[in-house]
Amino acid sequence: MGRRHVAPEVPGATLRDLDPERILRLEHDAVVVLDQRRLPDEVVELRCRDAAELAEAIRALAVRGAPAIGVAAAYGLALASVQGQDVDDAYEVLAASRPTAVNLRWALDEMRADPTPERARRIHEDEVARCVTMGAHAATLVPAAARILTHCNAGGLATGGYGSAVGAIRAAAERGGVANVWVDETRPLLQGARLTAFELEALGILHAVIVDSAAASRMAAGEVDIVITGADRIAANGDTANKIGTYGLAVLARHHDIPFLIVAPTSTIDPTAATGAAIPIEERDGSEVTVRFAACNPAFDVTPAELITAIVTEEGIHRPPYAGSLPGPVGSR
Amino acid sequence: MGRRHVAPEVPGATLRDLDPERILRLEHDAVVVLDQRRLPDEVVELRCRDAAELAEAIRALAVRGAPAIGVAAAYGLALASVQGQDVDDAYEVLAASRPTAVNLRWALDEMRADPTPERARRIHEDEVARCVTMGAHAATLVPAAARILTHCNAGGLATGGYGSAVGAIRAAAERGGVANVWVDETRPLLQGARLTAFELEALGILHAVIVDSAAASRMAAGEVDIVITGADRIAANGDTANKIGTYGLAVLARHHDIPFLIVAPTSTIDPTAATGAAIPIEERDGSEVTVRFAACNPAFDVTPAELITAIVTEEGIHRPPYAGSLPGPVGSR
Repeated sequence: MGRRHVAPEVPGATLRDLDPERILRLEHDAVVVLDQRRLPDEVVELRCRDAAELAEAIRALAVRGAPAIGVAAAYGLALASVQGQDVDDAYEVLAASRPTAVNLRWALDEMRADPTPERARRIHEDEVARCVTMGAHAATLVPAAARILTHCNAGGLATGGYGSAVGAIRAAAERGGVANVWVDETRPLLQGARLTAFELEALGILHAVIVDSAAASRMAAGEVDIVITGADRIAANGDTANKIGTYGLAVLARHHDIPFLIVAPTSTIDPTAATGAAIPIEERDGSEVTVRFAACNPAFDVTPAELITAIVTEEGIHRPPYAGSLPGPVGSR
Repeated sequence: MGRRHVAPEVPGATLRDLDPERILRLEHDAVVVLDQRRLPDEVVELRCRDAAELAEAIRALAVRGAPAIGVAAAYGLALASVQGQDVDDAYEVLAASRPTAVNLRWALDEMRADPTPERARRIHEDEVARCVTMGAHAATLVPAAARILTHCNAGGLATGGYGSAVGAIRAAAERGGVANVWVDETRPLLQGARLTAFELEALGILHAVIVDSAAASRMAAGEVDIVITGADRIAANGDTANKIGTYGLAVLARHHDIPFLIVAPTSTIDPTAATGAAIPIEERDGSEVTVRFAACNPAFDVTPAELITAIVTEEGIHRPPYAGSLPGPVGSR
């Protein structure tokens, strides 16, 4: 994998850093991704020259976020096809890179019938367009001048552009204004402190990073009007897997009578998973937490549907009971 | 302030590292503290040669934990007296070092009438003895082979020896065994991952560090039998200030029907604070969270009495309603 510095120093994040083509693109000999491990200190592109290199970039979280992983995998399959490599092999290598996000397999399945660069680019454009639509839907649920709390990064970096939860924040900022965004730093890998804060800075939306465990006291102080996160996989009944810590936020939101929104494209819904119990939870290496002592490092948790106020997709606002209101199997959509 | 390496390398923590006199002691020309900022990587002593140096060590968290701060301040007042300095000046300098822990002022008030090394050492011995008694009380509330979750460090390092919450874990381990301790890493300063894990390693008690936001999913998985933490200040009605994140754990414990225990000496109780609203919450520098973006960094939160199953002091197990069951003003104890 080759690296290229786009900017040796970042004086401040700009909107240009959030261009869909800067986040993810297909070139003639590589899938090029903005290396999310290095942000915000360095804006560095990573060139993945085949499916194996891209799978490693996904595993290592250089590209992360359920929809972005799907788009990257689509580009990877197109690259394999253009290069005359075995598309089935590329499919398997990419599908095995991470277990929890369902968009990965969804995008690969979409590509199998038509593994062309054009199809991959259309998936990318579609994902960004869905985000814009979701954002508009979700913004109708956000009060004017809201104090919003979010976890991890469900921004343009995670979706290939615009963002799901951050997209909702963008749309809300345009609609009725956003007074403040509490950004959970999101241990162990600090996607909130590093990536979401980077995006909100570029967007000019006021925000403050907090340690994850401070969310409860912000709620108790009456400083949170709504919690908005993305999702890695949504079961048919609405149970939602997302970054570790999301479930606890939902319990805390319920305790404080604060709405808790999931914003995600329909590609995140897995109708074959009846409930959250059927969603595989990735266990990552303990060294991400600390190198000195034994650690337990689940990367995701599952939030039961009963704690979720609404699930917003590009199709609209879904309310409980979700079993009846979420889109069905892909073929029927 | 001078530094002295006790051991250049730590192959593994040992019980000797938890000796009360190693954690905190008075020498003829200095208060010597084990520098908790450097643990577990280095076991380094810090020599504070007057009250101002000790106050700085407390402010910078070289010595931390509500009871340990009280003991250190007692030694600091004794040192000032021995050195022929103004005891009232030393009192003011030390009292201003940190705002939330009430033990600090309690210990200073105790010392004012008798600012001798003997009195300070007796306060230290008393605090350790209280911990042993509290541990025995609390252990009766812990099921055999329990899976215990704890937050921050309420161990020997925080109390001058034995520990409050960790003391309860020690006593439970001797009584009915402890199957596992989930140690919240405790951002931003990682007192759990660095200090509590260090102590449990020395004690030979099985444990695993988790990111703070993983506590909820451990509870949902049925892997937590009881939550035990220490306290920095307890109001007359039982509302308890402790490390940021404690309040959220109490809400989560209630949601999962898991007992939530506070273990703290009576020196932590502030009968002049009617409720938690009267407890000052220290706001520390945002740079502890992250240096790049705006951050909000409250160091403590307040857990309402209604979420606390029991408050254990050296006087026994206090149950709700706490207004009637907690010890009254110091003079009446």
